[in-house]
Amino acid sequence: MKFKAEVRVELKPGVLDAEGKTTQKSLKLLGYPVSNVKKINFYEIEVDVNSAENAKAVIEDACRRLLANPVIHNYGIEVTEMNNSI
Amino acid sequence: MKFKAEVRVELKPGVLDAEGKTTQKSLKLLGYPVSNVKKINFYEIEVDVNSAENAKAVIEDACRRLLANPVIHNYGIEVTEMNNSI
Repeated sequence: MKFKAEVRVELKPGVLDAEGKTTQKSLKLLGYPVSNVKKINFYEIEVDVNSAENAKAVIEDACRRLLANPVIHNYGIEVTEMNNSI
Repeated sequence: MKFKAEVRVELKPGVLDAEGKTTQKSLKLLGYPVSNVKKINFYEIEVDVNSAENAKAVIEDACRRLLANPVIHNYGIEVTEMNNSI
């Protein structure tokens, strides 16, 4: 079965979000009334396993080993079953 | 009033997602049963305007001018009111 995992990797509170801050500065320079821009890395991943629990376990492991750095990142995972009707 | 805009900037179908493909290769090398990895840029932005419609208009404009390249990107915007109860 195929599952779609949506993974959201964001910096922990207190860690400098350089990309967010730069975006914020640029938006302000262009005159937009914005504050507190936060940049988040988001991945959509298809996983071939037999259950949603396994899909989540696979992606959790992948987050720890590759997608996130546990020292500076928090991550969230949402798994949904993919429709194979075609 | 403050509104929180969640902006999702992704490559249009057919445009090479180099970061996604590289992540996919790395995950496969590590032995994960994954396919079709898609990398999406996600921003959380606080907007100081007087209505949700204005917040959306501001962020739409910002997407066209700065956050997305309309030639290669699709973007989606979700606006929610922020709780100022403190």
